[in-house]
Amino acid sequence: MSERIWTAALVVIGDEILSGRTQDRNIAQIASWLNVQGIRLREVRVVPDVEDAIVEAVNQLRTRHDYLFTTGGIGPTHDDITVDAIARALGVPVVVHPDAQAILADYYAERGGLTEMRLRMARAPEGSSLIPNRFSGAPGIRHGNVFIMAGVPHITAGMLDALTGSLEGGAPVLSEQIGCWVAESEIADLLVSTEHAHEGSQIGSYPFFREGRVGCNFVVRSTSRQVLDACAADLAARLDAGGWPAIVGGI
Amino acid sequence: MSERIWTAALVVIGDEILSGRTQDRNIAQIASWLNVQGIRLREVRVVPDVEDAIVEAVNQLRTRHDYLFTTGGIGPTHDDITVDAIARALGVPVVVHPDAQAILADYYAERGGLTEMRLRMARAPEGSSLIPNRFSGAPGIRHGNVFIMAGVPHITAGMLDALTGSLEGGAPVLSEQIGCWVAESEIADLLVSTEHAHEGSQIGSYPFFREGRVGCNFVVRSTSRQVLDACAADLAARLDAGGWPAIVGGI
Repeated sequence: MSERIWTAALVVIGDEILSGRTQDRNIAQIASWLNVQGIRLREVRVVPDVEDAIVEAVNQLRTRHDYLFTTGGIGPTHDDITVDAIARALGVPVVVHPDAQAILADYYAERGGLTEMRLRMARAPEGSSLIPNRFSGAPGIRHGNVFIMAGVPHITAGMLDALTGSLEGGAPVLSEQIGCWVAESEIADLLVSTEHAHEGSQIGSYPFFREGRVGCNFVVRSTSRQVLDACAADLAARLDAGGWPAIVGGI
Repeated sequence: MSERIWTAALVVIGDEILSGRTQDRNIAQIASWLNVQGIRLREVRVVPDVEDAIVEAVNQLRTRHDYLFTTGGIGPTHDDITVDAIARALGVPVVVHPDAQAILADYYAERGGLTEMRLRMARAPEGSSLIPNRFSGAPGIRHGNVFIMAGVPHITAGMLDALTGSLEGGAPVLSEQIGCWVAESEIADLLVSTEHAHEGSQIGSYPFFREGRVGCNFVVRSTSRQVLDACAADLAARLDAGGWPAIVGGI
């Protein structure tokens, strides 16, 4: 049984990430959300607030994947150039989206009114639809397979909620974690042979050093519940047999 | 005065980042460290544990920038394919580095000996030098302008320490933060005109919502201390004059 795999890419836009000032939280958040939708995040690029860099990344990635997400650069200030860059990448003009304008007019009615700078947040590539933002007025934007999200993680979280269930995907990747107080280098062979014995499974190995001891968490992944359970049980049994008690659920 | 700007790119290698399992910490850590070295991180790509994807990213980025860093995929297990992929990208064979072998033999002397799987961590693209790892034996690898670092953040931190001061760079970017309880959209014009008044400065705007109020932190950046101080003082004065008291150091 071969199955269509749905893939996505993410472009994180922002000098604040590249300068080290801000710790990115959107990669992990969007990755986890996509996985639940049955879509796999396959590549991420972090680019500066430079139009050419955004255009290049968007155009390379939107044609390679089913979906392309961007985060950052959609506020009202001079360094917010995401909408212009993506419109250029798509070859369409930037227009004021009437629904976005109405949302912003409503949001700012009791917050000092819709100024010219605030109206910037109603701009969108021509042909876009909106992604609701329940926190701060300015909506996200969808154009074809391109999804333009906020940079502030909790606002993006709200936008993802609004999109939940609306994107076509395949079977989500299921996973099971097993932990063990063992040095990764001692069981490398065991991992290979276990993975090979269970077609359709994948085992990741994540070593750590804690409480003065080395240990490892293993994440077994599969889109099939049956393959996942068989592989995880086999891995635990092989670790136990080797004298390294397996801790189901991880350490 | 025009000045040579030194740039770097980073390739983060790891399914665990793309699946959302692990929150990346290396982007911010390497970005901050590079900045102190006078080198600007200009692009980051996160790619899966897939040789073709690593080769493509490494070859696109190592020629565009003065330095290329990678993190992840240098452990002893089957999913650790970074060394092979980078050797292929560089067009050189993989060899066992004698110094790395000696380091590992020493490290594992009282930890069960240097097995075949552990010896995998002594493999390097031919012509490499080593980057000391004071935490766990297996060294990082340097080949020309390519720096191959660990995935575990504290191990990479130790490798960065070992490299401090050894990479040629330019003037580091200096920054000053100013905070204000104001909606970003109210002062967007003020930011543009302040930045324009101080050539060689850049102002980033980072809005937040805290304690029930909206606020913004502004980061002024410049490689010149004089330009930085003048721009930051001017920004604070303009905010004060607008009725929004500026909080030097940020909120």
